[in-house]
Amino acid sequence: MSREQLAENVFLSEDERSVVILDQSRLPQETVCLSLDNEQEMFDAIKTLKVRGAPAIGIFAGYCLYVLAQRIAHEIDQAADDLQELPARVLYNRLSEQAAYLNSSRPTAVNLKWALDRVMACTAQTLESTQAMIAPFDLVQRIGDEAEAIQREDIEMCRRIAEYGLSLLKEGDGILTHCNAGPLATSRYGTALGPILLGHDQGMDFKVFADETRPLMQGARLTAYELNKAGVDVTLICDNMASTVMKNGWVQACLVGCDRVAANGDTANKIGTSGVAILAKHYGIPFYVLGPGSTIDMDCPTGDGITIELRDPQEVRGETAPEEVPCYNPSFDVTDHSLITAIITEKGICYPPFDESLKEKFGV
Amino acid sequence: MSREQLAENVFLSEDERSVVILDQSRLPQETVCLSLDNEQEMFDAIKTLKVRGAPAIGIFAGYCLYVLAQRIAHEIDQAADDLQELPARVLYNRLSEQAAYLNSSRPTAVNLKWALDRVMACTAQTLESTQAMIAPFDLVQRIGDEAEAIQREDIEMCRRIAEYGLSLLKEGDGILTHCNAGPLATSRYGTALGPILLGHDQGMDFKVFADETRPLMQGARLTAYELNKAGVDVTLICDNMASTVMKNGWVQACLVGCDRVAANGDTANKIGTSGVAILAKHYGIPFYVLGPGSTIDMDCPTGDGITIELRDPQEVRGETAPEEVPCYNPSFDVTDHSLITAIITEKGICYPPFDESLKEKFGV
Repeated sequence: MSREQLAENVFLSEDERSVVILDQSRLPQETVCLSLDNEQEMFDAIKTLKVRGAPAIGIFAGYCLYVLAQRIAHEIDQAADDLQELPARVLYNRLSEQAAYLNSSRPTAVNLKWALDRVMACTAQTLESTQAMIAPFDLVQRIGDEAEAIQREDIEMCRRIAEYGLSLLKEGDGILTHCNAGPLATSRYGTALGPILLGHDQGMDFKVFADETRPLMQGARLTAYELNKAGVDVTLICDNMASTVMKNGWVQACLVGCDRVAANGDTANKIGTSGVAILAKHYGIPFYVLGPGSTIDMDCPTGDGITIELRDPQEVRGETAPEEVPCYNPSFDVTDHSLITAIITEKGICYPPFDESLKEKFGV
Repeated sequence: MSREQLAENVFLSEDERSVVILDQSRLPQETVCLSLDNEQEMFDAIKTLKVRGAPAIGIFAGYCLYVLAQRIAHEIDQAADDLQELPARVLYNRLSEQAAYLNSSRPTAVNLKWALDRVMACTAQTLESTQAMIAPFDLVQRIGDEAEAIQREDIEMCRRIAEYGLSLLKEGDGILTHCNAGPLATSRYGTALGPILLGHDQGMDFKVFADETRPLMQGARLTAYELNKAGVDVTLICDNMASTVMKNGWVQACLVGCDRVAANGDTANKIGTSGVAILAKHYGIPFYVLGPGSTIDMDCPTGDGITIELRDPQEVRGETAPEEVPCYNPSFDVTDHSLITAIITEKGICYPPFDESLKEKFGV
């Protein structure tokens, strides 16, 4: 698997009849690409986390609709005489059903719905503007263009985040990261890993420490995997070793992603992020949050408004602890804005006071 | 297995012909007691961590010598006519060989050597004071008394640490602990878990959060196990959840053990301890270090003098991360004295400035 393919872990097959994904559920033990050409397989890929990460799911959903639309267009083509409605309208209706089906695979994945809605809205608009007189294969082409635009925009967005982030780093820096916000979760570069990968492409050397990120080990399974594959100097540590690594003087910056950022800068991200931020502050190390502008929620005044989702205690207990021991398993935590050095989006770098700097870029 | 037996995980069988241990290597999946009556089994129990924790190993070693001495005394008794030397001297010589053999099972376990040396020194002294005219079975009795004294003194020491520690807690407190410094590692009460167990015995309720303590999971395997068995309200968390639990207001005190404390209060303990201390300071939660006075090393001026042992990277990598990813695996870290609220030993509670308070109790 080439660096290029790894960086774009969701792409179209050469004949454009299927969506190809890197099966993330089998990483890092096995590097397996899956070629998906029907809605059941696509549904299953999302549900079982074969494809994961909000941006990656959005890109995947767009290409799925393109592949499915092609399939429908061929069916329509072969049964043109039996159609009761204009072919483009038939295509739209059938594709709508399949979009609804795909959306039901992971109802809480905001980006899945967003991407499906975007492609279907574009399809509806084309249908309307042509009064449904457009040839099905032309409509399919329009759908393909929209799907491609989603990926192109994500690449562009990640590229900008990477560039802004890289401007804060210097050659030889030690960097600590938590969880996974790399290309596997997005498209090329990723968010938190973007500055590292972009800098690496430009010949800069960093020494990265990846927290393993218990309990689901995204740092061990994905971050360590993709940085290592990309040729970046990465060392895996247990989450509780971050303090020692910082104390050793090995870390000049912390880079983390974000799930949701409140208007005052309080940031929800994978469990353990707030602990890393407190350690960074203690050791005087800058702590940077990186993510797409879509995660800045100006309607949420502070982190107090962010509900912490609790996951299955069994994820913590595993095979190790006695069954009868209660476990607490919050999926993410909120890092207080006072611990954050800067928040980096595709729109630029926001510094404290965040209520002002975020408002300037994201206010209505 | 009764509470009493769990609290004393090393004890003599009723006929005193074997040492019984709770096999810690199989916890918590299986609660298996092993009855050991020969030196090969005893050697193996130490080497394969069936018995672990410095104080527990010391107690075990003492009882092993008592059981082995009895066996030798019986052999001597049956072959009395063939002896070339006084029987007590023969017993001493054979027991010395077995002590040396047991000591070779885990050469870095300081307490193993200490306990073996103590019992053998006592044996040598008795031999000398009686001019080896003592009957073998009387000498065996003297060895048994010394072994029992080791355990009795450990129980007394743990009890004092527990009492001093308990004086710092109040009914209903939430307590966070890291790694395992409970009865399994010592005798009754343990060190860091002592105040919790003593308070529980006195009818006090605490809500304990046990860090799982990657990579070897002593918190998940042992602390959660033994507190749960003792009826204490314990919740297991991943190490990276400590910040959230503290932020939630659920923690009123942190209790941790110690491997070695420098003269200025800098404390070496299981990896991750320093991170907990930094979080506690950030959230304004007292952070207490508990351990026997023997861990206070007045010859070591600061934590800089403590070498951090690196363990096998495979412990971090496990089955999860790719084989080719480098891992860093320090076994412990050093918590700066400025982060510690008090250091509690059997001699009492030391507060900052530690260079003065430790010197007062442990200075020459």
